[in-house]
Amino acid sequence: MAVIKYSGKKPVRVAVVGASGYAGLETMRIISGHPAAEVVFATSNTYSGKDVQEVFPQLNLSRKLLFQPHEKAEAFRGADVFILSLPHGKSYDMIDSLLAHAAVVDISADYRLADPEMYEKWYDYVHPCPDLLETAIYGLTEIYRKLIKKARLLANPGCYPTSVALAVHPLENVSEYIKGPVIIDSKSGYSGAGRSPKPHLLFSEAVDEFTVYAPTGHRHTSEMIQEVKNTFGWNVPVTFTPHLIPVARGILSTICIPVQGDISESKIRETYESFYRGESFVKVLPAGRMPSIKHVRGTNMCHMNLFLDEDTKILKLVSVIDNLVKGAAGQAVQNMNLMFGVRETAGLLANAIMP
Amino acid sequence: MAVIKYSGKKPVRVAVVGASGYAGLETMRIISGHPAAEVVFATSNTYSGKDVQEVFPQLNLSRKLLFQPHEKAEAFRGADVFILSLPHGKSYDMIDSLLAHAAVVDISADYRLADPEMYEKWYDYVHPCPDLLETAIYGLTEIYRKLIKKARLLANPGCYPTSVALAVHPLENVSEYIKGPVIIDSKSGYSGAGRSPKPHLLFSEAVDEFTVYAPTGHRHTSEMIQEVKNTFGWNVPVTFTPHLIPVARGILSTICIPVQGDISESKIRETYESFYRGESFVKVLPAGRMPSIKHVRGTNMCHMNLFLDEDTKILKLVSVIDNLVKGAAGQAVQNMNLMFGVRETAGLLANAIMP
Amino acid sequence: MAVIKYSGKKPVRVAVVGASGYAGLETMRIISGHPAAEVVFATSNTYSGKDVQEVFPQLNLSRKLLFQPHEKAEAFRGADVFILSLPHGKSYDMIDSLLAHAAVVDISADYRLADPEMYEKWYDYVHPCPDLLETAIYGLTEIYRKLIKKARLLANPGCYPTSVALAVHPLENVSEYIKGPVIIDSKSGYSGAGRSPKPHLLFSEAVDEFTVYAPTGHRHTSEMIQEVKNTFGWNVPVTFTPHLIPVARGILSTICIPVQGDISESKIRETYESFYRGESFVKVLPAGRMPSIKHVRGTNMCHMNLFLDEDTKILKLVSVIDNLVKGAAGQAVQNMNLMFGVRETAGLLANAIMP
Amino acid sequence: MAVIKYSGKKPVRVAVVGASGYAGLETMRIISGHPAAEVVFATSNTYSGKDVQEVFPQLNLSRKLLFQPHEKAEAFRGADVFILSLPHGKSYDMIDSLLAHAAVVDISADYRLADPEMYEKWYDYVHPCPDLLETAIYGLTEIYRKLIKKARLLANPGCYPTSVALAVHPLENVSEYIKGPVIIDSKSGYSGAGRSPKPHLLFSEAVDEFTVYAPTGHRHTSEMIQEVKNTFGWNVPVTFTPHLIPVARGILSTICIPVQGDISESKIRETYESFYRGESFVKVLPAGRMPSIKHVRGTNMCHMNLFLDEDTKILKLVSVIDNLVKGAAGQAVQNMNLMFGVRETAGLLANAIMP
Repeated sequence: MAVIKYSGKKPVRVAVVGASGYAGLETMRIISGHPAAEVVFATSNTYSGKDVQEVFPQLNLSRKLLFQPHEKAEAFRGADVFILSLPHGKSYDMIDSLLAHAAVVDISADYRLADPEMYEKWYDYVHPCPDLLETAIYGLTEIYRKLIKKARLLANPGCYPTSVALAVHPLENVSEYIKGPVIIDSKSGYSGAGRSPKPHLLFSEAVDEFTVYAPTGHRHTSEMIQEVKNTFGWNVPVTFTPHLIPVARGILSTICIPVQGDISESKIRETYESFYRGESFVKVLPAGRMPSIKHVRGTNMCHMNLFLDEDTKILKLVSVIDNLVKGAAGQAVQNMNLMFGVRETAGLLANAIMP
Repeated sequence: MAVIKYSGKKPVRVAVVGASGYAGLETMRIISGHPAAEVVFATSNTYSGKDVQEVFPQLNLSRKLLFQPHEKAEAFRGADVFILSLPHGKSYDMIDSLLAHAAVVDISADYRLADPEMYEKWYDYVHPCPDLLETAIYGLTEIYRKLIKKARLLANPGCYPTSVALAVHPLENVSEYIKGPVIIDSKSGYSGAGRSPKPHLLFSEAVDEFTVYAPTGHRHTSEMIQEVKNTFGWNVPVTFTPHLIPVARGILSTICIPVQGDISESKIRETYESFYRGESFVKVLPAGRMPSIKHVRGTNMCHMNLFLDEDTKILKLVSVIDNLVKGAAGQAVQNMNLMFGVRETAGLLANAIMP
Repeated sequence: MAVIKYSGKKPVRVAVVGASGYAGLETMRIISGHPAAEVVFATSNTYSGKDVQEVFPQLNLSRKLLFQPHEKAEAFRGADVFILSLPHGKSYDMIDSLLAHAAVVDISADYRLADPEMYEKWYDYVHPCPDLLETAIYGLTEIYRKLIKKARLLANPGCYPTSVALAVHPLENVSEYIKGPVIIDSKSGYSGAGRSPKPHLLFSEAVDEFTVYAPTGHRHTSEMIQEVKNTFGWNVPVTFTPHLIPVARGILSTICIPVQGDISESKIRETYESFYRGESFVKVLPAGRMPSIKHVRGTNMCHMNLFLDEDTKILKLVSVIDNLVKGAAGQAVQNMNLMFGVRETAGLLANAIMP
Repeated sequence: MAVIKYSGKKPVRVAVVGASGYAGLETMRIISGHPAAEVVFATSNTYSGKDVQEVFPQLNLSRKLLFQPHEKAEAFRGADVFILSLPHGKSYDMIDSLLAHAAVVDISADYRLADPEMYEKWYDYVHPCPDLLETAIYGLTEIYRKLIKKARLLANPGCYPTSVALAVHPLENVSEYIKGPVIIDSKSGYSGAGRSPKPHLLFSEAVDEFTVYAPTGHRHTSEMIQEVKNTFGWNVPVTFTPHLIPVARGILSTICIPVQGDISESKIRETYESFYRGESFVKVLPAGRMPSIKHVRGTNMCHMNLFLDEDTKILKLVSVIDNLVKGAAGQAVQNMNLMFGVRETAGLLANAIMP
């Protein structure tokens, strides 16, 4: 697979495939404010032929752009990178063509799992291009930055797994104290459920509501298992329970891990602070400070903190991200920046809006 | 302590102390629709002297009632029962006087813990009347119904502990499979934080927000420890992490418990269905159905379900209640009904409002 | 058309046609708590064949009931009354059959306008059964109570028109001071938009949103024109602008009417208080008190108040209702009670839930 | 009063007085992302002495900054401009001192009304420095741009008046068709009510709520009267009714104005499009498109549209802004940019976040 050639003198030309779903739309928003990239092509079967700016008046695009149908993507030659925001399994047919001419950042789950058998267990199908699983790079930016810089096919992590894996990875330095299992209780805003209208996603149903779903078997568990193993070197058992919060954006994950031996909260804290020192998008909060989804809303930040329950020797990690930014489009752009030698933070420095 | 004498021919005369906080106000709402009870006295220092109906136009009271200051409660002789909704520790001075003339249902935490040392550890003070802890009955209705019928001082359970203890108690019949620890992740609406205005409770701060708080040391943990021990007979370790959801009402608790041995989800389900057969206010949902706070909003119901993660052998219990009804005023009235020989469901049968 | 025969000894047997939409579901909720009526039949094409209680676990029905397809309604003989909650224009085919055997309360707009030409102008079709428009009674209960008692085909008013007409009718007694036009600015919760999923009704789109729609030509304007004329005796010009609030339930209408001559706020207030004296479901609030949708949420109440801007001589009427109760199912049941000689308030006395 | 001297080579040094209220905090957010300005000083009595970044972790400040008490502002010499976000009437004592050394942009109402008598009627006090009313410039940017460029004391318009005046001013070109009165129905998010905790602002009270307030006598009416007169040249009567929407941000104003003569919607539309042609922050939407607060949330945009009800000859203007940006901090920065010769759009070009 050819290496990306990019001079850095012109803006990166971005094609967004699936631009009217929430992750695609968020990619449009971020790129439209990016100092070194521009959207040159956008697809949407729903709005095919319509002016992007008219359909989405909240965007300020620098040029007039009409939505194209997805099928036009394969033949498009004017992009340096395709950012794919299609549902899982929908881009296998076009992936070789796209990679022949450009880099690809795939926001779907299609290349996230290194082990093809995981697709059989968790996604219930045989992966059609296992060879690509070998070359694809898992884009958890802060952890795999070196690999990402050389990626041509980038598998952008899932939203829940991003919130979990960023919180867990620093424990690699204190892995001898980890007893397990890793018990993950995550809560997500409704944008995580996508933009296709279904009754339970209606405002009237969702307001005043809070509910659990998929308490066993959620597909994102597979990515968490993969990253927990990458962290500790062995298969610490992982269980995952997702919930829906009545907010549009945001994920908060509460992770409980029984620990053992002579370990203190302050020692673990030092590990975390050291692990993420110098990172622009991960902030370990001061002791006792609670992570809040509102502090990261609309931003590429991950805030986290840790608490040790001394009575039970259970370590609690709490992390928050915006599911559409650090959990999707933002991390995709962060990865794209690395792949093209652009400053990693370009286009991603907005403050959260509060209140 | 004298036994309650109540003929059953007249409505139970209820005095609500602390009637303008959320739990007190909810008590007012429920009693005002109760076929066999009526509010005869209501205190509020904030609105002292004002007409209840004018301050709260959503109520339809059968008689004109003025708010009295709390201090007037002690001398009031016209009540069969005082329902106390004061902050913790605020009624110790008046409790003996009240009990001399009437029954007391205390919605605060003052008499919930049987062991006075638990107050020192979790509430950080020495309990001033440990003798009352011995006579007070813990009002988790479905579990302690027989004792409650004879109670004169009823300690109404906390909102979080109600959601947890109702979900855990049926496991007493399969306790040999329980490995532990009991890892509780609860989520509550903002009414649980009370009606005293603080900046983080403002609408503009809370909307679009989701946050964790008190990840270690929350006082309700003590009640959960007590009930988990009452369930299993030994101190299974318990850890509790509360969160705030942007809804006014509702608690959803997700409880993860590692299990061991040859136990299946369907076998556990049978235990639950059998345990709560015939109960009016606890519903074990069909397999695979997700509990939702909206289904119990404004009602005295507890919906629950259970899920066994076969991969990790972790049992997940999920329960939902309305924190102000089954978690406070509703359970208080349910207990009052039992104490006075009124039909247990009286005043408590409204359907949830949806959407 | 035969008069309703109803002994009053048995519960009124209610068939709900269109029982899984929001108005139908609300009818189910209210009837299931009604002391003198019971649901004996319920249709839903979406859930045909399914157990009502399982689809909607928030309901507590007294008997097991399966959803039937709409087409079964015509042949059903076991009902005293059909409450129709179908979309506009969907019941014309079955209406004669239903009326042959039972009374009908129609929550749709099909018989609300006395003048068939209004259907051509506002609904854009020729009314197929103009003779029924003559016999149908417009069910604005507090205004047309006498007629309603004798109705066999009851046209239940629209949600917006109910909030407006109840606020305007008392002005009949001070009509000489009315200059006009009547400028109506209404705001409704999302349940008013129904339960069919559309993108703009999704939680993620609607939360944090507020928007206007149909600023000219909204169909409910026709009912308002009809009732304004019924109030004043002449065609005072009426304009209507609806908006969507991010709440599930509630309508607040702000009505501005330029007045003339020597009229004061207190004099108008006397008119209102006198007009609604003794009504159970309409409350004129004390001077200066603001109507709030939360005070009427889930109830059949209409709260209103009036304010005279002395600088501009513009009278402002503000009214609030729950669009699904007083604006649909609640008023339908109130009308049904009158039609069957049941106490008018039966099944409709719940307090609003706050917070 | 000395003219502003600013070289344009260094960033504008901004002191924010009242930086922990919502308007002040929003000023901090905007300036922290501004390419040609920086916050050098920030006051808050509530957080005096605390690190700004720690109190508000959502901000990414370029330098460490501690909150100062308000009283320190007068002596501070390092600012080119003070942006005041204090409550009304709280900065009269310091204004002369501040103006002696720097420019002032005042977000309060203290200098918005040109006529001192208006303060007596609407604010109920005698203005202490009527001479400053003569030199202060009313900062409705798109309308008074030329004057603003030379301002030293800038009175930033109120949030409601901004939404109204921007919608009304283009009518100056068709004023002969205006009959009046101007009937304004505005709806605002809760951040407009400020950050001081009061019971009715609590999340549990405000969620699911919608209410009217101050239906007569709201102070912002005075600014609207002033701008309506500036538009038409005569005192067209103005009435204003504000409401509270359960969102954090956003104002939508619906303005009804009876018109007369031979005027069409399309002719009025041409006037609007021509009036705002080339403006960066005002967008007249295409015919039939509804303004939505979500499209302008977090941005300095004003979207508007107009609709003519042909039946009643009532013109309806609908405008939306973010009350904290175009309605406060954003317009303040836009004005500051003009005053200092910085590009008008600097720091203000973010897209709205959707969903």
